[in-house]
Amino acid sequence: MPRIVEAIVTTTNAAGVPHIAPLGLIEDGAGWIIAPFKPSRTLDNLMANPAAVASHTGDVRVFAGCITGRRDWPTVPADVVKGVRLKDAVSHWELAVERISEDDVRPRFHCRIVHAASHSVWSGYNRAEAAVLELAVLSTRLSMLPPEKIDAELKYLEIAISKTAGPRETEAWEWLMERIRAYRSGNAEAASKK
Amino acid sequence: MPRIVEAIVTTTNAAGVPHIAPLGLIEDGAGWIIAPFKPSRTLDNLMANPAAVASHTGDVRVFAGCITGRRDWPTVPADVVKGVRLKDAVSHWELAVERISEDDVRPRFHCRIVHAASHSVWSGYNRAEAAVLELAVLSTRLSMLPPEKIDAELKYLEIAISKTAGPRETEAWEWLMERIRAYRSGNAEAASKK
Repeated sequence: MPRIVEAIVTTTNAAGVPHIAPLGLIEDGAGWIIAPFKPSRTLDNLMANPAAVASHTGDVRVFAGCITGRRDWPTVPADVVKGVRLKDAVSHWELAVERISEDDVRPRFHCRIVHAASHSVWSGYNRAEAAVLELAVLSTRLSMLPPEKIDAELKYLEIAISKTAGPRETEAWEWLMERIRAYRSGNAEAASKK
Repeated sequence: MPRIVEAIVTTTNAAGVPHIAPLGLIEDGAGWIIAPFKPSRTLDNLMANPAAVASHTGDVRVFAGCITGRRDWPTVPADVVKGVRLKDAVSHWELAVERISEDDVRPRFHCRIVHAASHSVWSGYNRAEAAVLELAVLSTRLSMLPPEKIDAELKYLEIAISKTAGPRETEAWEWLMERIRAYRSGNAEAASKK
């Protein structure tokens, strides 16, 4: 399997309105593949404007926020492509779509990095950040997993939170746990909020 | 609990010989605490030369390597303090010890960042990198955990490796798995190799 990085991907529609989504980018030689599901705003936007920006942020609240209805993160214009990046990104890549592989479920947009830049000094690995990302993945798969499996993963991930989290990771964890608790208590409306 | 980041910490002895160790740095206001165990080379070095360098690298082979007997990673001189940083660091912090809190097990060296710099564009989160770091933690706690708990964690962490690892993460994972297999097959000599 190819290497995958988790990034905050911004795309824009024909009118220039940005859409922000946490997505896994698939390594593809020197390029990266974006594979949005059908239907999705990212897919529509990539068809309208064949460019994307991948922001790399150390603030995992952006990942947790985007899947719990908190998408209003500050952005600034990209340097080269038409689009925006996260204002608080540690670094970002600007991507141009070079070709599309059609697929009924997830078309693949093969992209080239046309510009990359650093904005702050990366502060290294924090186990709690990784646990939040894993919880984010888990929170989108609740309907596919047995409750005891969810409990076991939560218990495991909580160790890194209790030992290494700061305020940002604790807040992001809580947003996701609210969503998970709502789902598990049968509040389907709150749980499906995206 | 305070926030903790996992870094590659280099310290030097009185003769200027560097020692490299993966360590958790504990956030302490605007500063960071290094808490090396007694006895350790990091502790001896911090007493001889009250400075340290925290290198932040996206190459988790350095973390896995340091605990499996592979410590020979290229370094370059630090900019401000007496010491070295990883040559391939994404970024690094140079730390000056400001005061020491004595402790019989883990004295705490309270440090201030006197210099920080970026060297390459951080490529964001990779779930396999995080899984390697978790396996590294697990591999140092084998004697404290029941075998079924180790099996469950391995099985869980392997998911991120199988789905998102590139060659570096796969290699780091294999180094750690060799150590774990050696420990579990009763080869205490190989397992305790540091």
